Amino acid sequence: MVEKLSTAARQEALAELGGWSYDADADALVREYKFRDFSAAFAFMTRVALLAEKAGHHPDWSNVYNTVSIRLSTHDAGGLSEKDVDLARRIDALGA
Amino acid sequence: MVEKLSTAARQEALAELGGWSYDADADALVREYKFRDFSAAFAFMTRVALLAEKAGHHPDWSNVYNTVSIRLSTHDAGGLSEKDVDLARRIDALGA
Repeated sequence: MVEKLSTAARQEALAELGGWSYDADADALVREYKFRDFSAAFAFMTRVALLAEKAGHHPDWSNVYNTVSIRLSTHDAGGLSEKDVDLARRIDALGA
Repeated sequence: MVEKLSTAARQEALAELGGWSYDADADALVREYKFRDFSAAFAFMTRVALLAEKAGHHPDWSNVYNTVSIRLSTHDAGGLSEKDVDLARRIDALGA
């Protein structure tokens, strides 16, 4: 069982993860990525899919042409957990 | 410039496309697909991405673990067009 992050831990994680925002209603990390076109956006999605599958933790996400919107939250924890922060870090490390 | 489908053409297309519904607010075709797991869902998304790129027409879509939700509409036409019906047919032809 994964624990939900404390408010302090969440604030620390958000300070570290520059490009991500906190969606308080969903208790989730959210970020939107823009690319040159659909091909570039889907290439990024494929890399994120591989990261997610490896981590055993998957995003709620959507795509419209060159835009990919990612929402990270942990169902088992009922909100944001360290798993989300880890996955956000790994996605950022792709350098998209 | 692609033309928006007439009401009659839309109704005919919907009768043919068994699994798709019509979202009147968005003037779009919508369908949800369920898979065994994330890996199977993303494999399907990859095939749809290739179809979409080949067609030069892309879905608005989202994914949560084993569920893929697809919305087809044509921005240039201001709603549903033959391009959407064609892409829906091709997606169904994947036999997912």
